[in-house]
Amino acid sequence: MQRRILIALGGNAMTGPDGGASVVAQQAAVTEAMKSVAVVVDAGHEVVLTHGNGPQVGNLLVKNELAAHVVPPVPLDWCVAQTQATIGFTIQNALDSALHERGCGRRTATVVTRTAVDPDDPGFTLPTKPIGRYLPADQARLLIELGQIWQDRGARGWRRVVASPEPLRVLDLEPVRALVAEGYVVVAAGGGGIPVVPDGAGWRGVEAVVDKDLTAALLARDLATDTLVIATDVDHVMVGFGTPEQAAITRTTPARLRDLAAEFGSGSMRPKVEAAARFVEAGGRQAIITSLRHIADAVAGTFGTIVTAADD
Amino acid sequence: MQRRILIALGGNAMTGPDGGASVVAQQAAVTEAMKSVAVVVDAGHEVVLTHGNGPQVGNLLVKNELAAHVVPPVPLDWCVAQTQATIGFTIQNALDSALHERGCGRRTATVVTRTAVDPDDPGFTLPTKPIGRYLPADQARLLIELGQIWQDRGARGWRRVVASPEPLRVLDLEPVRALVAEGYVVVAAGGGGIPVVPDGAGWRGVEAVVDKDLTAALLARDLATDTLVIATDVDHVMVGFGTPEQAAITRTTPARLRDLAAEFGSGSMRPKVEAAARFVEAGGRQAIITSLRHIADAVAGTFGTIVTAADD
Repeated sequence: MQRRILIALGGNAMTGPDGGASVVAQQAAVTEAMKSVAVVVDAGHEVVLTHGNGPQVGNLLVKNELAAHVVPPVPLDWCVAQTQATIGFTIQNALDSALHERGCGRRTATVVTRTAVDPDDPGFTLPTKPIGRYLPADQARLLIELGQIWQDRGARGWRRVVASPEPLRVLDLEPVRALVAEGYVVVAAGGGGIPVVPDGAGWRGVEAVVDKDLTAALLARDLATDTLVIATDVDHVMVGFGTPEQAAITRTTPARLRDLAAEFGSGSMRPKVEAAARFVEAGGRQAIITSLRHIADAVAGTFGTIVTAADD
Repeated sequence: MQRRILIALGGNAMTGPDGGASVVAQQAAVTEAMKSVAVVVDAGHEVVLTHGNGPQVGNLLVKNELAAHVVPPVPLDWCVAQTQATIGFTIQNALDSALHERGCGRRTATVVTRTAVDPDDPGFTLPTKPIGRYLPADQARLLIELGQIWQDRGARGWRRVVASPEPLRVLDLEPVRALVAEGYVVVAAGGGGIPVVPDGAGWRGVEAVVDKDLTAALLARDLATDTLVIATDVDHVMVGFGTPEQAAITRTTPARLRDLAAEFGSGSMRPKVEAAARFVEAGGRQAIITSLRHIADAVAGTFGTIVTAADD
């Protein structure tokens, strides 16, 4: 049965094992990830891909800083845009190749994607999302003087925190929908989308980063997607992680997942669990959190943490 | 009469009067340019936009250099990709706004676009396209040691030269065509497209920049575009520029334009003239070279240097 599937690729799909985001490391990780994605596409499903961009934006911020005396720095919305295109065409090159090797004629496209956020989102007054590299206090101070917010993170040094507002609407949803309907595998809303707020008759970018899993849930809902796959570096969501009672969650519901959410603190699993729950609560058939190499099994319903409205 | 029109925006559509490519300068220039574009869209034409990216890529190269000791530099194909997204969404924000103000409901989209080039293009062995900033000899030498090619340009210093291979095919043509057919104003092939060469079953990026006007001619031909507008900073192509015989060319043919081409040396007018000639020779009805503020007049056929197969 042909289904519409949105796959949200985590950092490990596009950075080296050490989190490195060199061009070579990114290409190698994407090439590996696309072998898994190609299996799903080749099975005949409609596939939309979205992806994270944390380490990549981190690199761009360093370049901004170190060249600021020669070249005007660009804001965060521009950094997000930059990574949409570089990761997008890297995914296309790798996926085109993987599909061709399988004899699958499906084509790919990357759509630059803006995500509307609320200018009054609390994140703008109390930013909480850490991004970029750690710096010693004296260097952080120089950037604080430029208007950035940095926090003392202890032994590792200071780190910039920025707004991570709720995604309200994927502005460029319709071209994505049109291309999916034409048979394209579409890369969209990378890095959660370029954050924009209303401005007169249109929109303008803002200094923020949107959580890519929360935007993925929104995109999956609005594209009437059957399955949302959140691909990360673990096979399952775990309870009691690191304790003798540690166990993999194989099937669950949004309500039970939310009960567990407190356990995940503010770590990277938190937004994944929240995104999975939101998608199913909004009427999506299933959300699956699993590792990259198990995407095809997840889509087949035989692996991963599968979230549905009620366990069957 | 509704026609399909490709508008190639020159550097002055997205940089400050001094060539500056700060975020504010780019936004201001794009906002102004989109007022002209909106008139054409609002008249009911199908419009595809492409754009240059020279100063923007120049900025990215400086960042690459100055942060190289901390962050791995990215190759030119990545820089081109980065500018497709930043300029693309800046255009969308400005055009969405300009269209909304006119009460025009047309929507916009930006497609990340790869352009296939020949790995044996002579440009790769004898690069001729100067990019980025001038540097003193000692700084240039460090970059030469990294494998880059720099040339002594006299009083202003040394400058990097790179391959500018012939565009052979716009790889991501089909999604552009599909979105145009759905009524979108599509931004595509920015900076001439991300240069890629065949690699196994797929494609890989290469260190090069493709001339945006030559790619525009290819894109216009393959989209069966009626009119190619090359928008730049002069109202007309001139003959005898700076002499008492200076005159604006208002109507001409590819053959006569080619006869004049030698006069333009290797300056920025040369590829514009070549692109206009190629498009008409390939069967396009008309190519028009004019200034940004006269785009609408050009489309109406009342202004600019109009190139057709035979003068009427």
